[in-house]
Amino acid sequence: MGNLKLINGVQLIPQKIITNPNGDLFHIIKNTDIGFVNFGEAYISTVNFNSIKAWKRHHRMTANFVVPVGCIKIVIFDSRDTSPTSGMINEFSLSLENYMRLTVPPGVFYGFKGIENGLNLLINIADIVHDPLEQETISIEKSEIKYFW
Amino acid sequence: MGNLKLINGVQLIPQKIITNPNGDLFHIIKNTDIGFVNFGEAYISTVNFNSIKAWKRHHRMTANFVVPVGCIKIVIFDSRDTSPTSGMINEFSLSLENYMRLTVPPGVFYGFKGIENGLNLLINIADIVHDPLEQETISIEKSEIKYFW
Repeated sequence: MGNLKLINGVQLIPQKIITNPNGDLFHIIKNTDIGFVNFGEAYISTVNFNSIKAWKRHHRMTANFVVPVGCIKIVIFDSRDTSPTSGMINEFSLSLENYMRLTVPPGVFYGFKGIENGLNLLINIADIVHDPLEQETISIEKSEIKYFW
Repeated sequence: MGNLKLINGVQLIPQKIITNPNGDLFHIIKNTDIGFVNFGEAYISTVNFNSIKAWKRHHRMTANFVVPVGCIKIVIFDSRDTSPTSGMINEFSLSLENYMRLTVPPGVFYGFKGIENGLNLLINIADIVHDPLEQETISIEKSEIKYFW
């Protein structure tokens, strides 16, 4: 991911891990962080081994993802007509070994695949409370996004 | 924990788990939840098997704990002189099987013990950003809290 060009508005930011003999501490997000919008809701999504959860798009929600357990492939697609990166796809592999916060703005489709044969756990700190009216889910079969999971 | 009398200001609230064949979803907290104060910071704390992280007290921070992986014993002690439950101890065992959000107000000491021989993972959604000036850490050896871990 060294020279990866990111979709417009997307952030990928390493988060600090503070080691401790009794158990480590992992930063997720602070209200003072660049790119922090607001707090609406926090939830956990798990992705089973080789399962795919895709595609989802929000019209208002900005998501902030971290993966502290297992490994999740996250693929995003810029569906915004007016975006300078319209039509671009990015893929990320988030895990403890690659511990980063991925910020995904509204209008960008995202999907997850569980990579480890065990627990794959993602935390989302979203800027609004869950609202079914502002989100779309399109199955990978019906989507026009060309991505081979 | 059926008839447990809680320390004043503490909340223990079951959170919804939405099952999904591709991986379940777990609520943590929404800004519309009763008891939600503000969003300052989210972080993860892991607690190794049989390790104890205690005692910690905040003067301003309200903590919101969930344990989605493993099992963590959380013990809290009310050190507030003017509290109707001053001097009271509560203990909780949080895990996926007992998936609840525990809200701990300022002035209440807390400590963790890792119960499972594997990953024990806690998420804290705190209402302020980490500030070393508003928190105290007292080792269990030096503390006057009488609790046998």
